[in-house]
Amino acid sequence: MSGPADVEELISRADRGDRRALARLITMVEVAGDSARRVTTALHPRSGGAAIVGLTGAPGAGKSTLTDQLVGALRANDERVGVLAIDPTSPFTGGAILGDRVRMQDRATDDSVFIRSMASRGHLGGLALATPHAARVLDAIGYPWVLVETVGVGQAEVEIAGHADTTVVVLNPGWGDGIQAAKAGLMEIADVFIVNKADRPGVRETVRDVEGMLDLAGERPWRPPVVETIASDGVGIDAALAAIRDHRRHLVATGLLDVRRRRRTADEIRSIVVDTVGRRAGQRCSGPAFDELVAAVAGRTSDPYRAADHLLGDDLASAP
Amino acid sequence: MSGPADVEELISRADRGDRRALARLITMVEVAGDSARRVTTALHPRSGGAAIVGLTGAPGAGKSTLTDQLVGALRANDERVGVLAIDPTSPFTGGAILGDRVRMQDRATDDSVFIRSMASRGHLGGLALATPHAARVLDAIGYPWVLVETVGVGQAEVEIAGHADTTVVVLNPGWGDGIQAAKAGLMEIADVFIVNKADRPGVRETVRDVEGMLDLAGERPWRPPVVETIASDGVGIDAALAAIRDHRRHLVATGLLDVRRRRRTADEIRSIVVDTVGRRAGQRCSGPAFDELVAAVAGRTSDPYRAADHLLGDDLASAP
Repeated sequence: MSGPADVEELISRADRGDRRALARLITMVEVAGDSARRVTTALHPRSGGAAIVGLTGAPGAGKSTLTDQLVGALRANDERVGVLAIDPTSPFTGGAILGDRVRMQDRATDDSVFIRSMASRGHLGGLALATPHAARVLDAIGYPWVLVETVGVGQAEVEIAGHADTTVVVLNPGWGDGIQAAKAGLMEIADVFIVNKADRPGVRETVRDVEGMLDLAGERPWRPPVVETIASDGVGIDAALAAIRDHRRHLVATGLLDVRRRRRTADEIRSIVVDTVGRRAGQRCSGPAFDELVAAVAGRTSDPYRAADHLLGDDLASAP
Repeated sequence: MSGPADVEELISRADRGDRRALARLITMVEVAGDSARRVTTALHPRSGGAAIVGLTGAPGAGKSTLTDQLVGALRANDERVGVLAIDPTSPFTGGAILGDRVRMQDRATDDSVFIRSMASRGHLGGLALATPHAARVLDAIGYPWVLVETVGVGQAEVEIAGHADTTVVVLNPGWGDGIQAAKAGLMEIADVFIVNKADRPGVRETVRDVEGMLDLAGERPWRPPVVETIASDGVGIDAALAAIRDHRRHLVATGLLDVRRRRRTADEIRSIVVDTVGRRAGQRCSGPAFDELVAAVAGRTSDPYRAADHLLGDDLASAP
């Protein structure tokens, strides 16, 4: 395990452009615990400047290609960008593979682009917690843009994408795609809609469906724009990026950016508190005293809840 | 929410054979919290007599039919039996349906059989915790047999089935099914193997595969028997039940039953402790004091871990 000195050393190396040091810092915050704490404590004061953009949508909608093109457009403007590709593998199915990572690797020779795949290790809550930590590292090391791309539209992925400053929902032409998006809870979290593969039939209907649902939602300070792209040909990318920048200006001008960040901060603190007490409580459940309690419960002279009370003690058992 | 008086009333009604009262008690322990505590505290002293049998295997292996036949065999011997059908629905796929429940409903008119489907509400840890609680209720109300049937062989389901006194692994004939079972971690938890649909080709090879793997495991006090059944025709059911009874005698004679139950008790206490402190810690994360901490972190005068320390206080933050 790395000591505090190592963390400072890694940060100063990452500041000088050492990508391996940066990768190492992200690894340290991915695993909750002491290392995450040291890195976060050191980097949090320097963070807060980056625009966090979440991209979500059904598998095959073209999110990777779109992300790649957005990276290209930002680089054309000489802006540095970090990409977090989220793959919340289900422990039941064996999970998806980030197939389009290969193309993204072309960017790997560009020192101003940092791409990181974050795979779940069977615990989705952990990944939801790890993503903002990783985004903070990129932010603090000087990436003014962090794109968070999720593989599908599962519950955890929608949650992760919805925790961004700006959430982009990617749809495809075709009857019902707009309705599917609504069902998946995407209408509530979308700040920008992108209808990708706009050279395919049905694009007009999909745009109309989405606009219709936005009409139903009524008057709001920000109405999500609907942008058509053909990401594979680079068509519409500038318009998509312009929509994202527009939304950011709106967030800043209205103070909504602070509101969103506070909500994210609250969730993060809550996660750390629950995770910390959970791990510490687990540590109490071993040793001879624990074995005695187990024997008493198994022998029916106690019950599981009374044993738990004993382990919790007055300190843990008392209400706040 | 039900008070202590209600719990006593429900228990006495369940004791008199009121199935709705029994169902209600199980619902109360499914949801962790005060109700679960009251029911468990009241029923734990009366529990410990039942044989808990877990049945697991790939979807389509015929576990439901087999469970139904085992219920029939136990009823033929005038023994009461409870069935917990576990359906850990993945939040990603929308989940499987317990299709064979319909047939089992034929048993619903038999007062000595109690069948309960337990579906995950998106939280597998919760289901793993709820299953032993529900089994305890059936045990205490006077069901000497509790069959715990899982839908598939996911990680959580293997864990649930492996927490039984006797774990039955159901395979089908066909090349590789034995190897798949080994891969899924079933060799380690199996006390009895059942090769169901034994009228299909490949049954000899599957039995040989399993026996071969058992040979490799070397000399052990209990070698899991491999029983062939055709559950849909009732063939081999008596042999399967005899193998389960043999294993139970072995558990009692060797003292292994106590070892297994202590392990299960330890896991249960640990779950209650971790769940309790997690919920209590979550409750601390609201209100004006919490909002102030969030503002400080968002304003960069604090960081998420320092804010978490503050919420945890000395009591929660200190090591045991």
